[in-house]
Amino acid sequence: MSRIDGRTPEQLRPVTIQRGWSKHAEGSVLISFGDTRVFCTASVTEGVPRWRKGSGEGWVTAEYSMLPRSTNTRGDRESVRGKIGGRTHEISRLIGRSLRAVIDYKALGENTIVLDCDVLQADGGTRTAAITGAYVALADAVAWAQGKKLVKAGKQPLTGTVAAVSVGIVDGTPLLDLCYEEDVRAETDMNVVCTGDGRFVEVQGTAEAEPFDRKELNALLDLATGGCADLAALQTEALARTLEG
Amino acid sequence: MSRIDGRTPEQLRPVTIQRGWSKHAEGSVLISFGDTRVFCTASVTEGVPRWRKGSGEGWVTAEYSMLPRSTNTRGDRESVRGKIGGRTHEISRLIGRSLRAVIDYKALGENTIVLDCDVLQADGGTRTAAITGAYVALADAVAWAQGKKLVKAGKQPLTGTVAAVSVGIVDGTPLLDLCYEEDVRAETDMNVVCTGDGRFVEVQGTAEAEPFDRKELNALLDLATGGCADLAALQTEALARTLEG
Amino acid sequence: MSRIDGRTPEQLRPVTIQRGWSKHAEGSVLISFGDTRVFCTASVTEGVPRWRKGSGEGWVTAEYSMLPRSTNTRGDRESVRGKIGGRTHEISRLIGRSLRAVIDYKALGENTIVLDCDVLQADGGTRTAAITGAYVALADAVAWAQGKKLVKAGKQPLTGTVAAVSVGIVDGTPLLDLCYEEDVRAETDMNVVCTGDGRFVEVQGTAEAEPFDRKELNALLDLATGGCADLAALQTEALARTLEG
Amino acid sequence: MSRIDGRTPEQLRPVTIQRGWSKHAEGSVLISFGDTRVFCTASVTEGVPRWRKGSGEGWVTAEYSMLPRSTNTRGDRESVRGKIGGRTHEISRLIGRSLRAVIDYKALGENTIVLDCDVLQADGGTRTAAITGAYVALADAVAWAQGKKLVKAGKQPLTGTVAAVSVGIVDGTPLLDLCYEEDVRAETDMNVVCTGDGRFVEVQGTAEAEPFDRKELNALLDLATGGCADLAALQTEALARTLEG
Amino acid sequence: MSRIDGRTPEQLRPVTIQRGWSKHAEGSVLISFGDTRVFCTASVTEGVPRWRKGSGEGWVTAEYSMLPRSTNTRGDRESVRGKIGGRTHEISRLIGRSLRAVIDYKALGENTIVLDCDVLQADGGTRTAAITGAYVALADAVAWAQGKKLVKAGKQPLTGTVAAVSVGIVDGTPLLDLCYEEDVRAETDMNVVCTGDGRFVEVQGTAEAEPFDRKELNALLDLATGGCADLAALQTEALARTLEG
Amino acid sequence: MSRIDGRTPEQLRPVTIQRGWSKHAEGSVLISFGDTRVFCTASVTEGVPRWRKGSGEGWVTAEYSMLPRSTNTRGDRESVRGKIGGRTHEISRLIGRSLRAVIDYKALGENTIVLDCDVLQADGGTRTAAITGAYVALADAVAWAQGKKLVKAGKQPLTGTVAAVSVGIVDGTPLLDLCYEEDVRAETDMNVVCTGDGRFVEVQGTAEAEPFDRKELNALLDLATGGCADLAALQTEALARTLEG
Repeated sequence: MSRIDGRTPEQLRPVTIQRGWSKHAEGSVLISFGDTRVFCTASVTEGVPRWRKGSGEGWVTAEYSMLPRSTNTRGDRESVRGKIGGRTHEISRLIGRSLRAVIDYKALGENTIVLDCDVLQADGGTRTAAITGAYVALADAVAWAQGKKLVKAGKQPLTGTVAAVSVGIVDGTPLLDLCYEEDVRAETDMNVVCTGDGRFVEVQGTAEAEPFDRKELNALLDLATGGCADLAALQTEALARTLEG
Repeated sequence: MSRIDGRTPEQLRPVTIQRGWSKHAEGSVLISFGDTRVFCTASVTEGVPRWRKGSGEGWVTAEYSMLPRSTNTRGDRESVRGKIGGRTHEISRLIGRSLRAVIDYKALGENTIVLDCDVLQADGGTRTAAITGAYVALADAVAWAQGKKLVKAGKQPLTGTVAAVSVGIVDGTPLLDLCYEEDVRAETDMNVVCTGDGRFVEVQGTAEAEPFDRKELNALLDLATGGCADLAALQTEALARTLEG
Repeated sequence: MSRIDGRTPEQLRPVTIQRGWSKHAEGSVLISFGDTRVFCTASVTEGVPRWRKGSGEGWVTAEYSMLPRSTNTRGDRESVRGKIGGRTHEISRLIGRSLRAVIDYKALGENTIVLDCDVLQADGGTRTAAITGAYVALADAVAWAQGKKLVKAGKQPLTGTVAAVSVGIVDGTPLLDLCYEEDVRAETDMNVVCTGDGRFVEVQGTAEAEPFDRKELNALLDLATGGCADLAALQTEALARTLEG
Repeated sequence: MSRIDGRTPEQLRPVTIQRGWSKHAEGSVLISFGDTRVFCTASVTEGVPRWRKGSGEGWVTAEYSMLPRSTNTRGDRESVRGKIGGRTHEISRLIGRSLRAVIDYKALGENTIVLDCDVLQADGGTRTAAITGAYVALADAVAWAQGKKLVKAGKQPLTGTVAAVSVGIVDGTPLLDLCYEEDVRAETDMNVVCTGDGRFVEVQGTAEAEPFDRKELNALLDLATGGCADLAALQTEALARTLEG
Repeated sequence: MSRIDGRTPEQLRPVTIQRGWSKHAEGSVLISFGDTRVFCTASVTEGVPRWRKGSGEGWVTAEYSMLPRSTNTRGDRESVRGKIGGRTHEISRLIGRSLRAVIDYKALGENTIVLDCDVLQADGGTRTAAITGAYVALADAVAWAQGKKLVKAGKQPLTGTVAAVSVGIVDGTPLLDLCYEEDVRAETDMNVVCTGDGRFVEVQGTAEAEPFDRKELNALLDLATGGCADLAALQTEALARTLEG
Repeated sequence: MSRIDGRTPEQLRPVTIQRGWSKHAEGSVLISFGDTRVFCTASVTEGVPRWRKGSGEGWVTAEYSMLPRSTNTRGDRESVRGKIGGRTHEISRLIGRSLRAVIDYKALGENTIVLDCDVLQADGGTRTAAITGAYVALADAVAWAQGKKLVKAGKQPLTGTVAAVSVGIVDGTPLLDLCYEEDVRAETDMNVVCTGDGRFVEVQGTAEAEPFDRKELNALLDLATGGCADLAALQTEALARTLEG
């Protein structure tokens, strides 16, 4: 059985990672997972929030947002509505936790890195593309901070790499990296965040229709682990390229 | 190795479920998981939100909140701050999804049930206690709606039961139903929502310190499945008691 | 003429005052006036708001809120609406003023006590139950602060006791401690806050239908003074009990 | 003992009532109680809020606000802060209730009158000046609605007149109509709203320092009743003047 | 062709400027341009916003607002809606920029002046009346600050005078100082802010219907320059009068 | 005298206009003026806002926003702050008015087009780039609506083209299309919006330092008119290209 876009069940969509997409940000990436396109910037500032001052430790946080017409029908701007919706809150928190999982706060020192992930075009998997792209922007920002001596010589704030992918069961078949059309039809939907060495940072599975059993859960975890490994290789490859500008 | 409160790793805290704790709500439960105490009400209204009108289908939603001094140090009220925090949003959404997993919208008909879960005292596991208690309140509210003929004769809006429990790895040991002190020290923290027949509705695992591997994940899922089965039994027992008033 | 619930005009509803209902708060009370049930906590923190720093004086403030389904039909959460309603503001301010009336700021020293009064179930008189319960929680919190030496030895921050009751004219008859059904039918509605020695802290009378004359006002004040004296006795009795835990 | 401004204890400040101060509003008054100056407008619209539609009854509501520099030191605008403070809410509600006390909703028919009371300059007693002025604006608006046949011929929506005054105990002496300097020093502060026939609509007394006893309360009520009678005469006189424009 | 109110195209409406209209503010003006009536206060405080501290320079800012019934039909209060609308924001910013154009921050020293412009009655040209009146209030406030030695001896914070007027093309004819009825019918609408020496501080022209050409623009600028010169003379005259009180 | 980036005073920065940058929006453009990069989408929906229903006329509106790290230092998200700032409001309104200047509402029929202009990277002139890009997105959206028969056959909702450019006086020299560094140093700053036939839609000039005289104003208008003509040619060229996808 082939998928809507001709992929095999365990195949990612075409992934592109463009670094240096902003002249202002310390790290910036335009990432695409098929038609999903997310602009990730990493902003470094000296100092930490008040509750962390004097701890000698840094902080990493994230904000996710969708442009109003990144989706098929236009959504209201959260700034105009005057409040952030639950979904946005939830994803921002997920991205922040995922990236913090590979940060050594002590090594980072009292610096703050804010990751902004703005979805320019959505076609499923925006949160997983955001995490995967944000890691690359984070890595560039950390390198920048090391170059500027904000991070002490010999310190490595990054303890590993992190990537994320969605998996789901559609018409009974476990699939990797769902596009929007598949996502809508999925009975079970799971987002998995892994480190480059194949361990889990986050596992979030939700039964959209029928509850799922342990066997299905295992099949999804297998798929996700493979997908994250592929993404980790693409991240490494992107970071190996020379950053012009 | 024994736990802070003397429990074995796979043991729940003492659970109490008091039904009929409100004279106004169609279903109401005061549930406690050890020192965690959550007041759950289920409010039935005829009609559904605008986007669902004319569909013939019902709706179930949930709101979670913590009283300002339910915690060890007082937190600001979200009403005073003028906005709901990300954690509150996230948990409200989780509770709503979990309960909707056992609802047959068609059988419910165009009725809405709102589950309010207010934490009176917090000691870890507030969201899992909320889901577990909210199910019992929901069951009473559904029975009320059947009695009032809001639900058509012969229709059963509930497709099963649902309960939730937290699990985590503390000092390398997987533990069931963490109290606050254990939760703070957990390397990995997972909330699992199961139906009464042992299938999964939600699996949300987060590495708080080190990423976790597949073996640890499996151990946690085993513990959680057992805990949810125990809770399902307690729910059934509570619902078997006659509701005075 | 007997009342809906069989009381005489000058009779309170059954009052229960349970101290120590929270393991976290420095003072906590579950109070009920008939079916009205309010959970009051008193939270002590060292220090005072900025505008009072260096004055050597303490501060006491209060926040009142109703759980969404404390009433017969569910009300929206003020946190979800993003703002606090006028009634909530008004009652929070009333409770704060009433409790401050029996506080010696100098003796309290630069400590702050926040009283949270959350209505779990409403059946009329929620603000008066809140004030009456909050006093008991405050007394326990003050004792706690004395025990912890936050308050200087020999200092007594409490200058007296305070309690409150509603009175109203229903079908021409002045009644004490109105339940919701009486309150709705009252032509005149008054809330009176008295100190234990029978003096007035607040008198708030409102003509709901016809304006009232001086004679009616006097009759209501007589009833209220008696009711507050009864409540003061119950407060004293509750505080005389040993607080377990 | 003479007062700061030379008045006797039972003397009002000079009161001026200018009608027709706005060319747009159906009723408008610039009222002053000494240096307190409040601009009151009454706006009539056909129709009532949704919850009242089809009842055949009208509605009257009020909004109070202080200009940022109406006070001695500039206060933040509530529109800029993004929320209305408790005091503003409380006073708006008081004005609304006071004016509704002299309205026959049936006679008004399904029309709404909004009273806006904006304090241009504050020197104590802003809420009582607002109520007293708003009544005159309301009377003009009702007359306008009668002239425009919005109110049915032969119907009189006004059932009486209403005025308000503050009283308080300063240095042990009960005083009428406190200016700001007296208000700050008052041990007890009371706002009293009376109908023209001398009955009470609202009595709101607050012990600012010491609780007050029944005798003091009686002295204050006596003063207030007299003051309201004087104000009622001034209202009648103002309404008897021909309104130019 | 004569105008609605009989003016010639290059004629201002009757302008009145009353100084000292508030006993609290350091500068205060009630200005009218025909039936448009704006109350302007200038509030002086020592110190500057945080971002300007230690610079030795002062700050001037402005807030504009319309009373709800300043217009023909009542508008909602922005404080009640919980947010400031775009038009209010835009005009507040314009007034602030216009007044800052004649301020020497160094000479002002670390003092802040806030200009509040509240529209009591609107009939077109509220923003230009506000700027013109605010300048006079500002001049009085600066003089007050000099008298109080908040401004160093010999320093003159005002570098000139500033006034504003609207112009527009109605039925093909360029007109000065549009009243509301003319404003509604204008094809092009322009607000011009000039210094007393005839130079421009702001030029804001908008095509309401047809785009306008260079010749029309020139005609409007000619009219506006003349109108501002007339207003500058009226400001000078008003400031030459002795300020009682 | 040559400029920072080597341009002559009357020279635009390199301009690129990429159409079809979004697969969802009915019209979409990524426009750059030098390093300023704005993503413009035009979203068509059938129907109009409530206040316009039944008029037979359409509506066009715009929203402008800057991504948090589009600037040199990161700015807070307006959605997180819970309100839209004055500058954002002002620019959104300007864009909306500018585009409406070339719309024939009757020909558009009861359809709404929302223009979203999100600044991905800022280097001066974001509002003028937004207007210029939004016009092209609007033209594509109108063509789409014509293709879908939302617009009646034979009707042309566009009455012309519109473009915008900034001009300013830097060190005494009038310059076209200021980059950020020039903008900061400008004594006078003007944004001019012209139709393709060289007439004015908006002229907004502000003295940032010294007031400007008529001669300077004329020089700026000359420059702006030329710049807009160049931009109109680029718009026409972009729209002449075949839109793939």
